[in-house]
Parts: sequence; structure tokens; C-alpha cells
Amino acid sequence: MNFSLLSQKNGARRGKITTAHGEISTPAFMPVGTRGAIKGGVCPDDLRKSGAEMMLGNAFHLHLRPGEKIIEDLGGLQKFTAWNAPMLTDSGGFQVFSLSKIRKITDDGVEFQSPIDGQKIFLTPEKVMEIQHALGADIIMNFDECPPFPAEKSAVEKAVARTTAWARRCKIHHEKLLKQNGKKIALFGIVQGGIFPDLREKSARELIEIGFDGYAIGGLSVGEPSAEMYRICEMLDQILPRDKPRYLMGVGTPTDLRECIARGIDLFDCVMPTRNARHGKAFTSIGEINIRNQKFERDNSPLDPDCQCPCCRDFSRAALRHFFKCGESLGARMVSIHNLYFYQKVVGEFKKK
Amino acid sequence: MNFSLLSQKNGARRGKITTAHGEISTPAFMPVGTRGAIKGGVCPDDLRKSGAEMMLGNAFHLHLRPGEKIIEDLGGLQKFTAWNAPMLTDSGGFQVFSLSKIRKITDDGVEFQSPIDGQKIFLTPEKVMEIQHALGADIIMNFDECPPFPAEKSAVEKAVARTTAWARRCKIHHEKLLKQNGKKIALFGIVQGGIFPDLREKSARELIEIGFDGYAIGGLSVGEPSAEMYRICEMLDQILPRDKPRYLMGVGTPTDLRECIARGIDLFDCVMPTRNARHGKAFTSIGEINIRNQKFERDNSPLDPDCQCPCCRDFSRAALRHFFKCGESLGARMVSIHNLYFYQKVVGEFKKK
Repeated sequence: MNFSLLSQKNGARRGKITTAHGEISTPAFMPVGTRGAIKGGVCPDDLRKSGAEMMLGNAFHLHLRPGEKIIEDLGGLQKFTAWNAPMLTDSGGFQVFSLSKIRKITDDGVEFQSPIDGQKIFLTPEKVMEIQHALGADIIMNFDECPPFPAEKSAVEKAVARTTAWARRCKIHHEKLLKQNGKKIALFGIVQGGIFPDLREKSARELIEIGFDGYAIGGLSVGEPSAEMYRICEMLDQILPRDKPRYLMGVGTPTDLRECIARGIDLFDCVMPTRNARHGKAFTSIGEINIRNQKFERDNSPLDPDCQCPCCRDFSRAALRHFFKCGESLGARMVSIHNLYFYQKVVGEFKKK
Repeated sequence: MNFSLLSQKNGARRGKITTAHGEISTPAFMPVGTRGAIKGGVCPDDLRKSGAEMMLGNAFHLHLRPGEKIIEDLGGLQKFTAWNAPMLTDSGGFQVFSLSKIRKITDDGVEFQSPIDGQKIFLTPEKVMEIQHALGADIIMNFDECPPFPAEKSAVEKAVARTTAWARRCKIHHEKLLKQNGKKIALFGIVQGGIFPDLREKSARELIEIGFDGYAIGGLSVGEPSAEMYRICEMLDQILPRDKPRYLMGVGTPTDLRECIARGIDLFDCVMPTRNARHGKAFTSIGEINIRNQKFERDNSPLDPDCQCPCCRDFSRAALRHFFKCGESLGARMVSIHNLYFYQKVVGEFKKK
């Protein structure tokens, strides 16, 4: 992977990431395909047309089903998903700590119950590197400890220390695997530290010392006020190396994207465009609307008057509302597509020279 | 609407239907959009690419939600659905008699409870013509009485008599509406009579005497053996006018289509390709398969080795199985698209000169 910082204007960076599976213009928004599919029946073709250049998968979920070995044997995640373009896998640290019934956390790793069949699973930094190498995404993520919000400072401090220790092991194992398999995979470190600036700085400096291909900011958008998130990004903008991509994980609203791009962030992912769409919530040029609302019953105008996506080109608000009201999945699909186009437009504003 | 019979070979007819919204080469299979949307998140664009030329909607369901007046005010069903091509609406006779809690059937009409809110609804032949004229499909259907299977001959005989009486009223009211609204809408009669050849003949002859733009065969594919269905089609092939299209309603499997095309049928509709798809069942050139089956876990081949559809072009059986196993709706969408392409291929075999 290679990153070139092309220009910077009012804090916002414009860059280019080059991977074995293609290029990504940054700032970029990555649609989320947790289990290898975008929700709402959105296809890889739809994503491509929306302007998306990188898609995200989740190593934890794909480890549970169908298993990374199957995906590796079938030609890797890019082929399995039919995306055939740059992919990033999240390590699943966030999911392990937030969704699973954890049995034991030690310095060695995490023991927890599979949310699918209750079986005992033990994940270590080394194991997580092996899973992600098998999946074969272009960019993979460290295994980190993601503390909840709110958390005592002492707990966040411990999570930072463990995240650094695990980051070291991830890097060592990643390099060993690269030598073995010859794949072209980049590894990003994940900065933790909650909303405590001193811990964020400590975490970032320790990761920079180890050295990664890029740096992610984890543990935000977990319930803290937006202002706190923006403050952390602003602060880390001064610390993280300028010549490496920065990825703000799991963020956020269109406003969050704009604010954080202006604070030096290059990459984003978020389930919001598709999750909201499944509840009828659309992001539009005139604000958020819920298409299930009664007032759209006879509205013959497109979802967003200023949008050229297939949803806005083909369907009236009245038709979309009707599909939602009677449970036709075409509604969720079309609004998902619209929201994904909308998010690409948000980051696209910053790609113009 | 105009129908030209272009050629006939071994019983199979090749023809062309011309409507205000475009042409349909027959034999044709119409995908079912009961409420104005194809299930499985299949879009009008997907349908067009599959080779479909006419789509079906259901007047009964669209009357309940969103209401025919809304669709008329918004520019008609073709625009509302974004299909923008020939459409046919079923009158809903079958649905009223099979899905609803019927309160009272009289010669005047049917009183039943709305399956949505329990409200009392009274449908007459005239009312059903008004609903379908408001929706504005290119071809609309008579309101018929569809007896269950099995049924006593005396009950079927009564249903035939009522179907003829209602057919007469449908035709009169349809012509009155045509004069009022100037729309270009064709009306098809529906032959009833169960599996009784003499009643089928009686029903057909009575409808022919009234005179319709086309003739449908209703009340089949309701549980009777396939051989009975083929026998009825064969018999009606000799009775129905050669210069009008024949439509076998709600049929069927690929084999049913082939057998009935060879018995002079021009039009079909069926929920089977999309309904089966939602359960992982695919029609393929090597037979039916259920993609959820364990044996496809590591199968890197396409769903159907002899198919060029987007599903078979992009996804492995292993990926499709994975999507089904973890409830990703992309699986149902892709298998639905495949099955719809498959059905177009089945009728396409007969379109070659």
C-alpha cells in the first residue's frame, strides 16, 4: 500500500491510497459489508456506481461465518464478495468487546462465547493477524482493546497499555506472515484513549514508535458528545504522521464526516447510511427525512431533489413510502442506495481540486 | 392493444402484443409485483435486463394500499413502479376468494374484511373495473369467482355462471370507462370451470360470445395434478380464438411453462421464481438446487454453470450460501434475479424463429 498526500486546504487533506486491488482517492467513505455483503440487498455494482472505492469487512464476523480459510481457499475476500476492488477488514476488537459475552481478558488475549453457537473462542493478536491475512484484505487492523464509554480513566489507561502491547505483537506477527505468504497487505494501528487527550497522545506516540502503514482512531462515536470527538481528531492531527493515512473508525453523520475531514481524517466507515435506510431514514440535500411519514403519501417528487442516484431518478417519495408501509424490501434497497450515494457526495466535496 | 400471431410450431405460438407502453414478444413470462414491487429487492432495471417485457401488479392489493386514486394522481402504475413499460393488473378475484375473510357473496359482488385493518370492503365487477382503470395498466382482468380445489362440480358450475354474469358487467363498465377516460386499456376474460372439461368449454364459449381482447385461464395451479392442467389447456387451445392472446394465470414451474406453451398459451405469471429464491431455491440448467445446502459451503462455481446473469457472473455458490446462512438479503436478491433470468430463458427458447 502506498499513500500520497496531494494537497491540504483548511485542514482537509486530499490524497491517494494505492493498493494491489486499485486506488482510493481520499477523503474516502467505506461502505460496511460486515459479513461480506452490504445490507439492504445493495450489490457491489451499486457501490461502484455510487463512487465508493473501498469496502469494509469484519474479520470477527467472517471468522465466525463462513470462516477465513474458506474465503482464502476461494480466492480471497475481494473475489468472495464480488467487490474485486480495495478492501479493509476491521479486526473485530470493537465487536469482541461490545457484542460478545466475554469470559476472560488477559494480556495474552480474549476468551469469549461465540454469539452464534455459544462455543468458546480465544482470540490473540497473533490469531487476529492470521484471520485477516487469510481473508486477504488490502488493509488490515490491529487487535485492540476498546473500552466502553463512559469509562474510568484508570480503565482507559489499562486499555491503552494493552492496545500498545498487542500492537507490537500484531506488527511482529504481520511481518512474519507477509514473509510467509507474500501477500500485499498493509497494517494500521488503532489509537485508543477514550476522551482523555493525554492518553490519546500516549497511545498515538507508542503506535508511531512501533510504526504502522496507517493510523486509525478507535473508541470514538461510542456515545461521547460530537465536540469531544472533534477535539480528539484535532489533537491527533498534530501528532499523527502527515505521510500516513488516518482512519476514523465507525464515524458517522454527514456533519461528523465534514468536521473530521477538516481535522485531517482521510478514511471513514459507518453503518449509518444503510442502517438508517432500513428504517426509512434518508439523508438528503434538504436535511434528514423519514420516508414512512404520512406527509409523503402523495408526494410525487424524488427523495432528494438534488440527487442523480437510481432511487431519486426512478421512484417518487410516495412509491418509496408505499414500499416501506407494506414491507416491500425494494424500499430499503433504494433508500440504502440513495444514502450511500449521499455519503460519497459528502466526501466528494473535498476531492475537488 | 393489438396481438399478432407470427407463427406456430408443434403447438407453440410465437406472437407480438403491442400496447401503449411498448411491445411484448410472446410467449412471455410476467414477473409478479403484487404491490408494485418485485420481491427480493429486485428493481425494474434488473427486470429489463433479464428480458422481461411486461410486469404484473395486483389490483386488490394496490386498492388496499396505497389506493388506486393515489397511483392514478401520480401518473399511473407504470410510472409509480418505475417499470415504465407494459403492465397487467390482476383483478384480485383469486386473492379475494383465497386470502380474505369473506362475509358474503351475492350475485351483486363480494363483501369481505380487509386483511390489513379488518374493515368491510365490498367489491363488484364495476368497482373492480374502476380500480383497474384508475391504476391504468395496459391489460386488465375481469372480476371472476375462483372456486377452491377440490370443489364439487355443482359449486364450480355456479362459479362459472357467476363468472360469466360478472364478465358481462365488467365488459359493459370497461367500455363505459374507456369512453370517459380515453385510456388505452385492454380487458381479458377469465375462463373458469375447474378440472371439468364441459364447464371449461361452457365458460370459454360464454366469454367468447361476450368478446374480450384476450382470454385467461384461471383457477388452475391451485392444487390439481399437472396433467389435469395440461389437459385443460390442450382442450381450450381448440376453443379459444387463435387471434387473441391466451394467458395461463399463476403458472408455474419451468416444466409447466414448456408444456403449456406447447398447448398454445402465450402469457404466464408466477411468484415461484422470487418466492423460491427467498428460500434459497434456484432453478438451474442442471435442475433445482437449494443453495443453503451444506455441500455448497466451499463451492466456487456459479449457481448455474450455464447462465450469464449478474448473480452467476459475480457470486460463487459458497458466497450465496454464506449470505443465506447469515441472513444477508443480498443472497435472496441475487437468487431472485437468477431465477427471473432463468424463467425468461425458458420462454425465450420459444421466441427463436
